[in-house]
Amino acid sequence: MRISFNFLEVSVMRVKPFELLTDEGKPFTHVDLYGRYTILFFFPKAGTSGCTREAVEFSRENFEKTQVVGISRDSVESLKRFKEKNNLKVVLLSDPEGELHEFFDVLENGKTVRSTFILDRWGFVRREWRKVKVEGHVQEVKEALDQLLKEDLSLNRHIEWRRARRALKKDRIPRDEVETLIKAAHLAPSCMNNQPWRFVVVDSEDVLKRLHEALPGGNYWMKNAPVLIAVHSKRDFDCVLSDNREYFLFDTGLAVGNLLVQATQMGLVAHPVAGYDPVKVKEILGIPEDHVLITLIAVGYLGDENELSEKHREIERSERVRKDLSEIVRWNL
Amino acid sequence: MRISFNFLEVSVMRVKPFELLTDEGKPFTHVDLYGRYTILFFFPKAGTSGCTREAVEFSRENFEKTQVVGISRDSVESLKRFKEKNNLKVVLLSDPEGELHEFFDVLENGKTVRSTFILDRWGFVRREWRKVKVEGHVQEVKEALDQLLKEDLSLNRHIEWRRARRALKKDRIPRDEVETLIKAAHLAPSCMNNQPWRFVVVDSEDVLKRLHEALPGGNYWMKNAPVLIAVHSKRDFDCVLSDNREYFLFDTGLAVGNLLVQATQMGLVAHPVAGYDPVKVKEILGIPEDHVLITLIAVGYLGDENELSEKHREIERSERVRKDLSEIVRWNL
Repeated sequence: MRISFNFLEVSVMRVKPFELLTDEGKPFTHVDLYGRYTILFFFPKAGTSGCTREAVEFSRENFEKTQVVGISRDSVESLKRFKEKNNLKVVLLSDPEGELHEFFDVLENGKTVRSTFILDRWGFVRREWRKVKVEGHVQEVKEALDQLLKEDLSLNRHIEWRRARRALKKDRIPRDEVETLIKAAHLAPSCMNNQPWRFVVVDSEDVLKRLHEALPGGNYWMKNAPVLIAVHSKRDFDCVLSDNREYFLFDTGLAVGNLLVQATQMGLVAHPVAGYDPVKVKEILGIPEDHVLITLIAVGYLGDENELSEKHREIERSERVRKDLSEIVRWNL
Repeated sequence: MRISFNFLEVSVMRVKPFELLTDEGKPFTHVDLYGRYTILFFFPKAGTSGCTREAVEFSRENFEKTQVVGISRDSVESLKRFKEKNNLKVVLLSDPEGELHEFFDVLENGKTVRSTFILDRWGFVRREWRKVKVEGHVQEVKEALDQLLKEDLSLNRHIEWRRARRALKKDRIPRDEVETLIKAAHLAPSCMNNQPWRFVVVDSEDVLKRLHEALPGGNYWMKNAPVLIAVHSKRDFDCVLSDNREYFLFDTGLAVGNLLVQATQMGLVAHPVAGYDPVKVKEILGIPEDHVLITLIAVGYLGDENELSEKHREIERSERVRKDLSEIVRWNL
């Protein structure tokens, strides 16, 4: 009965398609839950003291970027009276057949168990409270919501923490972890879904040693990397469109962008470099001559920056340098 | 005294550089914490009953991908005897000066408060227990660790959930949310840190309407998007290296890859398209003729798929299609 999605190998519930009526008799569907945060509170019966107190308290609170929706098995008429009498500022949904009640599993022997859910803009249930006591509940929901908004609307922490770090340990990386990097890359979008990216993952000591001979002296630090990933593609693997739009390298960039986020999440340094002899690397790895070998990604666990050259140690400790936003973005005309 | 990093607008603690001695008299530093998960447990005194029980229970448990490190203010000699006597399987650190004790804030009136921390591979403190009761503690730590490993080592949930969705609401997006997308993009790496990506964010109704005239009929759905982001760059904004390696589009792809992850985290559809008249769009937006306008990204909140054409509705509901991994990745030679 539940539609679930396998996040983090735990089942996360996403709201199913439905259509109910509001206290004003208007249709309200799952689409009304999309694109906004929703506090959805199930209450046993309009007009009773606990339900009145809860609805009034939810009405008084100000929730940023969030709609508050109460739902019960009462009729539209009862909900209308309940709302008017108590001057409620929330949307009320009538679910006489208990369709959403069943979906959210809030019925016990046919009776509604007071329960509250926070849904995100995709309709995923992100927080839940069951067998709610009204006292202090609204405040608790508000705190959880504020935390959730921060979590979702701040800069992604892996994007923020990622750096082109050079200090690497020699420790080997299990193949399943490297495979997860490739899977993340492979979920990138591409023009007409052409998937032009190609990877050669090198983790054999023998092949790594041969690659080291194709590196300039300045990339000495890459010799510690237990994994080097060669990324290549070819112009005609992807769209070639008017006005010089060739997509093979752009789409490969999308894929590598995913890979870097995934690596950072996993606690892996992933540093894409351009400093290598591409002809030599292609020859060693048997990559066709007419492919572009756009980057080698050095992958490894974080190591000791004291093993780096003085120059690299300084870079490792420095702030990230970026152009001012005004140099790279313009709003409208 | 603490080194903290501003994740999620809450302060996350990262272990500071240190050097202590193990029960074997060997140096152990912060670098030994990098690249592996660590359970770091502070205990008051070697040989006492609670500390013995805790250390023995940590020794008996099997923690995947994780080192277990006990730390106290005891001397190396005491720790050595403690370990031998109880046949402990964990690393013990001697912190006689209380340097790490202070950093982790586990001293109360000069006495150690039994406390446990889980650190990730970057050295960030991800879980913590203070004023620990030994009973049941190791099991609780194990459960939290297992959850953390899943969180970090599974496929990133935003990468997994992202799709090139077409069902969009017309609801406007606050500018600060769009700016966060651009900031995420701008944190991508690039060849020699050239940052070749350029964005024009269009959110004015007037300009959006003019852009709609540059869209083919099949991209009717983009007319709902409250924001269109034009992404452009130029060959000489970035490295041009031997063997046909031009980096401007690849690096712009890295940036857009970040943007898509960030959007998904924020509950925004971000769908990069290639279907538009690039010459017309460049003219409307005042993008120089010699720039490549590589994509328009339609950004909006998820809407009603029933408003899409039958073909697009089917795509929206279908499984993602990807080549078999064996077609895009090879291991060694």
